[in-house]
Amino acid sequence: MTGRFLSLEGGEGAGKSTQIRALAAALRARGIAVVETREPGGSAGAEAIRQLLLTGEADRWSVRAEALLFAAARADHVEKTIRPALLRGAWVLSDRFLDSSRAYQSGAGGLNDGDILALHRFGSEGLLPDRTLVLTLPEAEAQARAHARDGGAGDRIGGRDRAFHNAVARAFAGHAAAEPARVRLIDASGAAEDVTARLMDAIADLLP
Amino acid sequence: MTGRFLSLEGGEGAGKSTQIRALAAALRARGIAVVETREPGGSAGAEAIRQLLLTGEADRWSVRAEALLFAAARADHVEKTIRPALLRGAWVLSDRFLDSSRAYQSGAGGLNDGDILALHRFGSEGLLPDRTLVLTLPEAEAQARAHARDGGAGDRIGGRDRAFHNAVARAFAGHAAAEPARVRLIDASGAAEDVTARLMDAIADLLP
Repeated sequence: MTGRFLSLEGGEGAGKSTQIRALAAALRARGIAVVETREPGGSAGAEAIRQLLLTGEADRWSVRAEALLFAAARADHVEKTIRPALLRGAWVLSDRFLDSSRAYQSGAGGLNDGDILALHRFGSEGLLPDRTLVLTLPEAEAQARAHARDGGAGDRIGGRDRAFHNAVARAFAGHAAAEPARVRLIDASGAAEDVTARLMDAIADLLP
Repeated sequence: MTGRFLSLEGGEGAGKSTQIRALAAALRARGIAVVETREPGGSAGAEAIRQLLLTGEADRWSVRAEALLFAAARADHVEKTIRPALLRGAWVLSDRFLDSSRAYQSGAGGLNDGDILALHRFGSEGLLPDRTLVLTLPEAEAQARAHARDGGAGDRIGGRDRAFHNAVARAFAGHAAAEPARVRLIDASGAAEDVTARLMDAIADLLP
């Protein structure tokens, strides 16, 4: 593969959507072809699975059924969108990827991290991003931003409680500690353009 | 658990639906509470996944995404329908279960049987039926029956070719050889009531 695969991660309200757009614009300004995508979703089949995952009652799915649905959606996303883009030399920017499953479902959800990784090896040949950028905010600021956006309601997953979201943040920090070459924690506080500059610094070694 | 769990398996046209109804009636006549169910499906969440699996183009899902979706549907089916029924002492009769995933996706679909079993351990704690009854027909008779029913069109999976369905039949025979205490091949030719009698013989040791 000749393209590069970047994932953006972080809890609710960290500014992932804004930063994906800004990062894509900065890369395009350098002449790089960019595919912006998201999880769960990013391909027709995966978007259909997304509807099952993000709508309905909070207890609609057991944590294990949910992990299998995320892995199925990711397999379709990788096969139909991510690998074809990388093979034609584009850069792929995904709003969430495997690290979200690991953080939300094993870190905060009670599953075994090795099981989540095994599902990913089975479904997606274990494809990992070249770099994973985790937007981090002090929790109070993240809550305030999320509340300003959606009144604090969130979707089936975003609407969970503070202890859950703290466990997610700890899990992301653990991934960065375990895989420092791939996973970087990025301070998401302050002005959006300053955050974008930090992201560009964190991928400087990957740029042509 | 105090109930018994039976699955009926077999290729298209083997008469599973007819025999499930007849077997349920025979068990009820003996005073046994029976839950009739099916896969993919059998619970609200699993029926929603069934829609994704059985509609759309033949190549809508990769075989790996499909295996993950079947495992997700089965996890929901086991958690919401099968285990609760067994715990209250009912017998569960399922039109297809794990052996179909193994036969269609590893036997005929190219996946590794151990991977299918691993997904089942993850999603459903590896729950197996007390007995699996595989309805078998000479292939020409099965084709004729399936054609009489739906003009040979079938759904996304039933509509596949003869080599595929032969591989499925070989896989079921392999399960019966490997696990003779659980999996029994039942001759599905002849009159429906004769087939039902063979099924009752094959579960005689389980009856109260």
